[in-house]
Order: sequence, then structure tokens, then C-alpha cells
Amino acid sequence: MDYVYGPGRNHLFVPGPVNIPEPVIRAMNRNNEDYRSPAVPALTKTLLEDVKEIFKTTTGTPFLIPTTGTGAWESALTNTLSPGDRIVSFLIGQFSLLWIDQQQRLGFNVDVVESEWGQGANLDILASKLAADTAHTIKAVCVVHNETATGVTNNLAKVRSILDDYRHPALFLVDGVSSICALDFRPKALEATKTAKSVRVFFDWNDYLKFYKLGTFWPYTHPSNCFMDLEQVWISFLRKDLTILAVEAWGLKNCTQKEEWFSDTVTAVLVPPYIDSSEIVRRGWKRYNLSLGLGLNKVAGKVFRIGHLGNLNELQLLGCLAGVEMILKDVGYPVQLGSGVAAACAYLQNNTL
Amino acid sequence: MDYVYGPGRNHLFVPGPVNIPEPVIRAMNRNNEDYRSPAVPALTKTLLEDVKEIFKTTTGTPFLIPTTGTGAWESALTNTLSPGDRIVSFLIGQFSLLWIDQQQRLGFNVDVVESEWGQGANLDILASKLAADTAHTIKAVCVVHNETATGVTNNLAKVRSILDDYRHPALFLVDGVSSICALDFRPKALEATKTAKSVRVFFDWNDYLKFYKLGTFWPYTHPSNCFMDLEQVWISFLRKDLTILAVEAWGLKNCTQKEEWFSDTVTAVLVPPYIDSSEIVRRGWKRYNLSLGLGLNKVAGKVFRIGHLGNLNELQLLGCLAGVEMILKDVGYPVQLGSGVAAACAYLQNNTL
Amino acid sequence: MDYVYGPGRNHLFVPGPVNIPEPVIRAMNRNNEDYRSPAVPALTKTLLEDVKEIFKTTTGTPFLIPTTGTGAWESALTNTLSPGDRIVSFLIGQFSLLWIDQQQRLGFNVDVVESEWGQGANLDILASKLAADTAHTIKAVCVVHNETATGVTNNLAKVRSILDDYRHPALFLVDGVSSICALDFRPKALEATKTAKSVRVFFDWNDYLKFYKLGTFWPYTHPSNCFMDLEQVWISFLRKDLTILAVEAWGLKNCTQKEEWFSDTVTAVLVPPYIDSSEIVRRGWKRYNLSLGLGLNKVAGKVFRIGHLGNLNELQLLGCLAGVEMILKDVGYPVQLGSGVAAACAYLQNNTL
Amino acid sequence: MDYVYGPGRNHLFVPGPVNIPEPVIRAMNRNNEDYRSPAVPALTKTLLEDVKEIFKTTTGTPFLIPTTGTGAWESALTNTLSPGDRIVSFLIGQFSLLWIDQQQRLGFNVDVVESEWGQGANLDILASKLAADTAHTIKAVCVVHNETATGVTNNLAKVRSILDDYRHPALFLVDGVSSICALDFRPKALEATKTAKSVRVFFDWNDYLKFYKLGTFWPYTHPSNCFMDLEQVWISFLRKDLTILAVEAWGLKNCTQKEEWFSDTVTAVLVPPYIDSSEIVRRGWKRYNLSLGLGLNKVAGKVFRIGHLGNLNELQLLGCLAGVEMILKDVGYPVQLGSGVAAACAYLQNNTL
Repeated sequence: MDYVYGPGRNHLFVPGPVNIPEPVIRAMNRNNEDYRSPAVPALTKTLLEDVKEIFKTTTGTPFLIPTTGTGAWESALTNTLSPGDRIVSFLIGQFSLLWIDQQQRLGFNVDVVESEWGQGANLDILASKLAADTAHTIKAVCVVHNETATGVTNNLAKVRSILDDYRHPALFLVDGVSSICALDFRPKALEATKTAKSVRVFFDWNDYLKFYKLGTFWPYTHPSNCFMDLEQVWISFLRKDLTILAVEAWGLKNCTQKEEWFSDTVTAVLVPPYIDSSEIVRRGWKRYNLSLGLGLNKVAGKVFRIGHLGNLNELQLLGCLAGVEMILKDVGYPVQLGSGVAAACAYLQNNTL
Repeated sequence: MDYVYGPGRNHLFVPGPVNIPEPVIRAMNRNNEDYRSPAVPALTKTLLEDVKEIFKTTTGTPFLIPTTGTGAWESALTNTLSPGDRIVSFLIGQFSLLWIDQQQRLGFNVDVVESEWGQGANLDILASKLAADTAHTIKAVCVVHNETATGVTNNLAKVRSILDDYRHPALFLVDGVSSICALDFRPKALEATKTAKSVRVFFDWNDYLKFYKLGTFWPYTHPSNCFMDLEQVWISFLRKDLTILAVEAWGLKNCTQKEEWFSDTVTAVLVPPYIDSSEIVRRGWKRYNLSLGLGLNKVAGKVFRIGHLGNLNELQLLGCLAGVEMILKDVGYPVQLGSGVAAACAYLQNNTL
Repeated sequence: MDYVYGPGRNHLFVPGPVNIPEPVIRAMNRNNEDYRSPAVPALTKTLLEDVKEIFKTTTGTPFLIPTTGTGAWESALTNTLSPGDRIVSFLIGQFSLLWIDQQQRLGFNVDVVESEWGQGANLDILASKLAADTAHTIKAVCVVHNETATGVTNNLAKVRSILDDYRHPALFLVDGVSSICALDFRPKALEATKTAKSVRVFFDWNDYLKFYKLGTFWPYTHPSNCFMDLEQVWISFLRKDLTILAVEAWGLKNCTQKEEWFSDTVTAVLVPPYIDSSEIVRRGWKRYNLSLGLGLNKVAGKVFRIGHLGNLNELQLLGCLAGVEMILKDVGYPVQLGSGVAAACAYLQNNTL
Repeated sequence: MDYVYGPGRNHLFVPGPVNIPEPVIRAMNRNNEDYRSPAVPALTKTLLEDVKEIFKTTTGTPFLIPTTGTGAWESALTNTLSPGDRIVSFLIGQFSLLWIDQQQRLGFNVDVVESEWGQGANLDILASKLAADTAHTIKAVCVVHNETATGVTNNLAKVRSILDDYRHPALFLVDGVSSICALDFRPKALEATKTAKSVRVFFDWNDYLKFYKLGTFWPYTHPSNCFMDLEQVWISFLRKDLTILAVEAWGLKNCTQKEEWFSDTVTAVLVPPYIDSSEIVRRGWKRYNLSLGLGLNKVAGKVFRIGHLGNLNELQLLGCLAGVEMILKDVGYPVQLGSGVAAACAYLQNNTL
């Protein structure tokens, strides 16, 4: 996949997959391991402890499942719910839409709460639904924490406190794929798995729990090379601020409608109607070896996205911003070259040690 | 996981995971890729063509699913069958046992045909079941091609011809995890997916087919680093022969009861009743940095396994055999040191170019 | 050496060592080789052919010496000259100064022609010296092709034609360490090695020639891992132009005094007297993970250097330029933030395909 | 250089270059470093301390010279001696021969003490020479510690004590390339460098000492990737013993004539006159992907060599021994297959924890 003509490194500024730290790449540079050797449980144990630290829990039970985010969604749903169970789920962008599609196909009764794309989850509606549900027919509330399609971050603490206010026993299921953050709902989730009637085998937590007890940890062969990839991503408030300042300097609007929803990991930028944002992403690939995020579904053609999470630093981001400026000019937007970079530099220069 | 005291390389002789060729390790030594860039569909297309070649099909539709063998089993079952469907499934060792467990938990009506561990699938029983099933209630016949727990390889062509003899429309589902071989049943499987009512989302082939048509190939983010890992493993008839000669020279018996079932990829060795085969594997780890396969389930303590597939050559295998001899002596078996190595060398010396 | 706090990649913008292409890093990711195996001469032969191509010669005899540039200098001098021989050598910056120091310590009679640092070799003086030297006492003319200390590139073709005009038989020895370029002087150099009386063993070309004839190529064990590192560096006229435009936009002067001497690989930037250029380089390291080149010797404190050779692309350079702007402001120079980046972007946007 | 047909790893059993530990390969898997950044002196300092530990000195001054063993020889000689100085040097095999050739070409007056190849340095002659040299005309005594051509290790402590017995001030220069061992002669060597008149620049220790004082450590650009390669090799008495036992079991003789001279790192094996030992090495390459050491110069065709230093373990060595047995049979030597492996296994089985 060294497909790009010309020298130098690819500039990877999508909201994921992210740039991998080099020590992690080096750690993965190895042969397969004998997965039944005594070394594997020893390593797995330290990994599970590390995962608990990332999730800020001391009592939760983490699972390392060799799958993708889509599989992790399925694992959370089928291990805690039974077919026909009522779920409240918020549709605010492409990834929440895909999760809801999965919820429906798995046979749950999904109560979809839609917001305009660019807005966060409508928590007023959640409150009224919970208030009305004295019979506790709602079994789970599902929220995508960080909707990277629109750059919206939902306020999880607020959701939790609404549930608590109504003393509602519904599970609170969070997609943290691009936020790596979670609340302490896990003990309750494990409780729920005992009564969940959804069909599952590959994703069944009970198989994991059985091998946890045996101390060998894995119900099936796992990809040992990837163990080394577990590393907390760096979320830079600074890099978010720099990106937002550049967007303002270019005279463009953020797709995310209120600052309280601004994501730390991705900024979705609205382009004027006479520009096709996909063309911006395509030119990034072709002319500058720069990878930006496409607009997805409802906002396709209308937004492009700058991911600023992962193993990145400020000068890398400034190179990306300079690239975006040239592309904007290419596609006919009257940007003043250097304006976004200058705005970001001015802020950075005053905020670096 | 550089956990072993002492110098040198680990000797990985389990039936999987296998030794990875160094060019493949080097190819994986890279950053993440932008998975929506135009380069990814281009690469994926060549990979899918390569997979077709490995499976010796020109018309089949392969799927690259970011999961493990257990997930691939689930994918094959849920995409082709509906809950309650009758399956004939052969129990001949630990891996066929696990697959049958999955089949039952997914809600199928499994007709289990058990053989003594060390024997292959009982095809006489298959024939009589098919003969009796004039109503075509059997929807699928499930066979683990290479049962690594006992070193048994089943004869797939025979199964196919029995199905054909009875003109029975049942699907023929094969676990090729450790054999990478398959018959041209795929077009029929894709047909079956249209009527299959099993609940699935992550594993749903229809999602893949949708993205195949779009030309982007992936329904969700995939682990691009692992693309480089797709490489045909080398199955050495020669290495199997050398191992079997050594086992004979040691005066030990093969767990696989007939030569027609001998696996090219793994040899399961029976130990005398006064020896615990797990102790052999443990001493391999501790004393010689040698990884052998444990006996599993019914043959736990009774067999140890020597894997001889993957990126290995003859002198590596001879080092392994020398290690096994010392361990056998350690645990009280009266082996003549050098006997197995000598038998293998004599054969090899006459069969190398 | 993962010593830098904070995430992301180091920005390596010194005039050498340069950024290594990733395929080259991957190729070096391997164990030692048996250096007497038949594979090594085969590989070496292709490498020597590649080196000839880089040097644009079909008849020359290249040597791959496991040493540094300093050792290569010594190799060129001791293999072609005898103690006491007269050399004309041009002092125009730190690297020519170091070479002259070596020439003197090796016992040659060095006729030093000094220019102001920032100017190229004074070829008028060369002409008059050659004109006067009818007895042919001058045995060699030594020129550093690309003096990275001041960003000066000398005109080799001009030197060659002056030598030819006077039909002078002196050897023309060129330091091409940072320019990888050379003229077809090699046949003559090999001739000279027959009479050269300088003491040498490790660097003796005759030992190499002996093993070239034997077809094993190496007089001693060589570092096989580094064979993979032989790859033409990319010299980007475009990246030089972008850097020079930024320097102008900042209102700063190039240390190189005339455009004809501008180096393609490095730009040396003069700072105003009230600024210490070393402080700029130090802040690059500390604040931005940016590596710039120091001013050396006579121009220490007065210049900093931006290397733009090696495996780099335009957005990486723009990130570097944005960093330099912030640092310039940090140290009290009244730069307009974004000005250099804007100037470079304007040019780049009009000159990319 | 993945030149070998067939799968698996190369078996590298030459006396050098050795197998590199994988953590070291991983550590070298990186981009170039800015060699003037503050991190480089910090790293270099720890490396120099590590080197002192390897050499078991607290007061010595080590040098890391980017060169090969041949260059290190030249560095030791030219930094401590002047042209015409008298040296006593022992010729016991190919590497001592090459060093003596260098000593003569550098203009020293070499007093060569030759032994039959397969014997160690004749220390009786040394004693008589020192006894006769009351005028102290001998300026240095040069010994190759581990003559890998014949598998001979000289007794350095004995040499030192003879020098002390005669209170002779001659420097004791040791080639430790393949032994990484040395005596505490360094302070004296540094003293000698002040009066040494040999011409040297690239190898001049004074340039190193100047930069040591400055705290930047390097007189010229160094290959930073290779810093990671400094790691003590493992010398296994056990692996030597196993190899010698196998040689005895094959009925062959050790080229090293007395046990007191047996090298820990390499065993040179004599073959009967009717066999060409080079053919053994060639068959290793071609048939078994096995690299053995050739016989050199006087013992060419008469010995082949098994290196057992570096990152190796016992089963790897047993695989090598099995390979040698098959080759011996191939070339017509009446070896009993398995005999060497059995002898080694018997010893190993009783000597492993």
C-alpha cells in the first residue's frame, strides 16, 4: 500500500484509524506466539488491568474481543438484551444511524430519537420518555458518545443523571469507539447478561467469563501481534482549539452546532453550497498525500472532517491546515492563504511551554 | 512477551498459530492506512483475487472477515441456515466438538455423528442418513477438514461424492481453518443466504455484498495492517513424513488411527499411560523454549502434538525432534536419544535435492 | 531515543541525516546475513551497478566503504596522493574547513583558497594558479560540492572546464556527501592509486580491487543490514523554492550570497544581529519537536539551516515553516505569522499537478 | 536477500556475524535521528558506560568507531605506535595473519612468531624475546584473543603476567573482535597516543577525546540506527561442549590442538584428507539453508567451522548438528546419523535445569 507517488509520509487526518505511535509499531514487529504458553495469560492479565485503568474502573470486567467496533456494538447488545426489548436510541449522524440499524436487525424494539445532524442527543425527549415509562418497559438507552460524522460529543454525565433522577433501571449503553471513555455501568451489564436471551456465540461474554475463571483468559485463538496496539490515544484539547481557530479564520462554519458538543477528536467543517466537499477530500489524496474525512450520508458533499486524535503533534496539524487552505483555493473558495495557519500559530505560540 | 530467559528463538511447533514468514512481518511493520482512500479498494480487490486462487475457485465469492475461526464458523452457519434447521455434524475431536456446541447454541437441530477420537468422520453413517432423508430435512453437512486435536484429516471429496450419489441438496460446510482448502460449494451458499433467517449483523454477508457492489469492499473499518498477513502456508508432506518416522523410531503410536487420516499439518502422538503428556508440553516451554501442542479434552494427558505447518524448514523440525527426545527421557520414557532424529535424517538425506 | 515528551513524529529538517523512506526501514528490519554465502556477492554486484547509475558512470569503479563521510574523504586522498603532494583546496564553510584540516594532517601541501562564508569557490584564483603551474606541481583540486554549512553549491562543470582549458593533469576530487553527484574522474583516480604512497590499509582501494577480481567483493566483514539503505535521495527543486520564498516573506536573508550558489538540499538563513540563531534551533527541539540545523563555526549564532532533502514532502515542509515562524516570534523577531507559509502555499498551489 | 528457496529461517552458524536478538532488531527499526539534538549525547553517554561494563573497566576510555574490525585494528595501532616501532605479533591463523599484514603495511617492524595453525601463541618465545630485550625496543605485543579460523583462544592473563614478570613496558594490544574481552591496558594506550607519530585522521582518538570534553561525543556523523545493536553476546560454555561432543561422536578431530585453547565461540572441525571441507559448507547453503564457516587459507578445504556464539539456543544448535551429519554422509564420510545429536542430547539432558 505504498501507493502514493512522491516522497515523504502520508498525512493521516481522518477521525480514525489514527496514527500509531512508533513504539507500538515496533512492538508488533514479531512472530506469532504460542497462545497456550504460560506467558500469554500473564500478559493478558496486565492488559486487562490496563484496560480497566483506561475505562477508569476498578470493579468492571473488560473484554478484549478480536473484532471491530461493529462487532463490539453487537456484543454489548446481545449480551444484555433479549429480542423484542425496548431501546431508546439517538440518531444524530452516520454512526448512530448504523448502530440503530443493527439494533433493529437484531430484533429489538427501537425508539429512535432523531436530531438534526450537527446537534447532540435530544435529552429533553429522553427525560419525557423516562418520565412516562413508569412500567420500566425501556430496557436500555443507547448513546454514541462521539459522533465523528458531525463532530458532536454527547454529554454522558447528563444522560446518567437524568436516568438517576427518574430512578430508571434501564441500562445505559455507550459507543465509546472514538472516545474511549465510559461510565461505571459494567457491573449492571454483567448482571443483565444472565437473563439476556439474544442468540450469540462468538460474542458471548459467558465464554470469556469461563476462561477468565480458568485463568487462561481466551475462549479462542486471538491475534497476539495486536496486543501491543492497546495504547491510550492522546486527545489534545490544544489541537482541537487550533483546528477550530483555523476554520473561523477561513470564514467557514463548524457542522457541530453548539460549542458544548464540539468533539475533541474531530472537527467537521461545512462548505458553501457551491462546493462539493468530497472534491476537497479527493484533492487531498491526489495532490498532497493528505487524508481528510469525507462527509457521510446526510452531510455527504457538505462537510469534510479533520481528525485530530491519535499520535499527532502540532506541526503535523499545521502542515495539514496549510494543505487544506491550498485545496480550498483549488476548489474555488476565496480563502486567504496562510490565514488559518496564522490563527492557529498565534494561539499556539502563546500556549506552548 | 519476550518472556523466556535465555537466548535464541522460540521453537513454535504448535498446530497454529504458525511461524510467519519474515517478508510478511516486514510488510505489517507500518502505520495505519486511511481506509477510505482510493488505494484501499484497489488493494482489497487484489487480495480477494488471491483468496480465490488459494481456494481454487474462479466463480466463488470470498469474504475477509476481521474475526477468528470461531467467528468464521458463526458467519458460515448464520448466513446459510435458519433456526431449527437440521444439520449432520461429525464429532471427532476438540474442534469439531466446539463447532457442534456453537451449532446447538445458535438454535440448529444438530444430528451428531461421533467417532472415537483418533478416527475420521464416519461416512457410512452419513450415507445411511442421506439415504433415509428422502424428504430433504437435512439442510447442511458440517465437517472439520483437519481436526488438529487428533491429527485427523477427513476426506472431503468422499463426502462430496456421497452427497452427489444421493443427489442430496444439503449444503456441505467445511471448517478449513487449519487446512485452507475447500470445495466449490460457495455459489450454493450465497444462494442459501437469501432464505437464511438466522439473526446476524456483524457477520452478515449481505452487508459485504452491498459494499462489493459499491467497489469499496468493506462494511466497516478493517485492520489494514493485517492485510499483509494473507499468505499461503506451506504444507510439507516431507515434514509430516519426517515426524511420523521419528514417532515410530521412538516406539510411540500416532493418535490418528489410520494412515489415510494422517494430517499434513500436525501429528498427535500418544504417550504410554504412565506418562502425562501435559508434562511433556510444560517441559518444552520451561527447559527448551519449545512450544508443542497440548492434548485437548478427551485426549488431554494422553497426547502431545507436533505442528509442522507454516514457515518452517527441515533443520528447525530436527531441532524440535531432538528436544522432544530429551523431554521424553526426562519424563521417564525409555527413548534412545538420537533415534528419532536419525530416522528422520536418513529419510531426508535421501530425499533432498 | 524516544526522548521527546509528547506525541507525534519528530520533524527532521537538518541537512543530514535525512528521513529514511519507510520501505528502506522495513528492508533493514532483519537478522545478520552469512557474509560468505553465495547470495552476498550476487547482491553486492547489483548494488555496485546501482551506485554506478547514481554516479552516472558506466566505466567507473565504485567502492562501498563501511565508514562515514570523513572516512570517505581519507579514502579518496590516501589512495590517490603521496605525502607532500600539492593540493588546491577551497575553504568556503565548515565542511570544506574540516576536509582541509584532514588534508594537512595527512601530510599534504595544501594551497588553501578561502572565500567569505556564504560565497562559492573562487574559480578565478583557481584559473590563475593553474595558469602559473606549468610544472604541474598541483596534484589535485579539492572541492566540496554542496557546502551545507552555508547552503552553497559549487559549479563542478565550471571547475572541470577550467582544468581542461589549461590541460592540467591534476586530479579533481569532489566531496559529494550531501550532493551524491560526481564527474567522470574515476578512471584517472584508479590510475593514481598505483603511485600513491600515502599509508593506508583499512581504506586501501587495492584490497577492494583484489576481492572484486575474486568475485567476493569484500575485503572484510561488512554491515549487511545497511545495504538496504542505498537509495537515491530525492532532491526537490520545488521544496528549495518554497523555503526560499518563505525566507523572503519573513524579511530574512539567505546566507548564500548569490542565487547561482543556492543549494537544492539546504537553505542557510541569516538572522539579525540581535538574535542568537542557536536559540532558534534549541527552541525547535524543546517546543515543537522540530530539528533544524545549527550555524557552524564562523556563522555560529548567525545562521540556522533548513534541510529539505531526503524523504520529505511539501506538507511536512509547510509544518516546519509554520514552526519556524512561531520560533522567530518567540525570540523577538517581528515576523508576521503565516506569511512564510502563505508565500510557499501560493507558489505550491500553482505548481502542483 | 531473501534468496533461499523454501520456507523457514536461515540457520546462521558462522563464527560471525552472529544472530541478532529480536529486541535489538526492533530497536533499530526507526528513522534517522538529528545527531546534534540534546538527546544524542545523553544516549551516547549511557552507551559508553555500558561498553565500559562489557570491558570490565571503570577507568578506561572506550571509543565507538563507525568502522569494522579491520578499522579498529588500524585505530589501535596508529594511535599508539610510530612508524618503525618494533612489534611482537603471533601468527596462528587467518585473522592474526591479516592483522600482521596490516602492521607491516602501516610501517611497523613486526617480529612475527608463527605457530602451526591449530595451536595457540607460543608464549615461550615471547618470554625469551622479552628477556633479551633489555633495551625495551619492543613497543607492543599483539595477540588475537580468539582466532576464529582455527578455533583457538589464547590465554591473555598468561601474556600479561609474562610482561609483568619481565617488567616490560610494551603495550599489550588485543584483538577482541570475536571475544569482547580485554585487559586493563587502556590508560596506558591513551598515554601512548600522545607520542604516537603514525598518520591518522579518521581513526584519530584525539578527535574523539576533544568531543568527549565538549560533551557532544562525536567527531563526525555516526550511524544512529546501529547504536541499538550494542548488546553483549552470549557465550555459551554449554553450546561449546555440545558441539565438541558431537565432533567426537562423529569420529572427527578438532583443528584446535589442545583443550586449553578451545574457543567458546567457534569449533573448527578437521575433515579426512579425501573430503573437501568447502563442499560441506556449500551443501549446507544449498540443501539445508545452513550457514557454516569455511576453512581459510592454510586450512582451506581441511576444516569447516561451527560458530556457537550470539543469539542462539540449544535446540537451534541441535538442528545444525543434525544438518552437519546429513552433509557428512552426503560427501562420503561414514558418519552414523543421529550419533552427534545423541551425544549432545545426552549431555544436555543432564545439564539443563
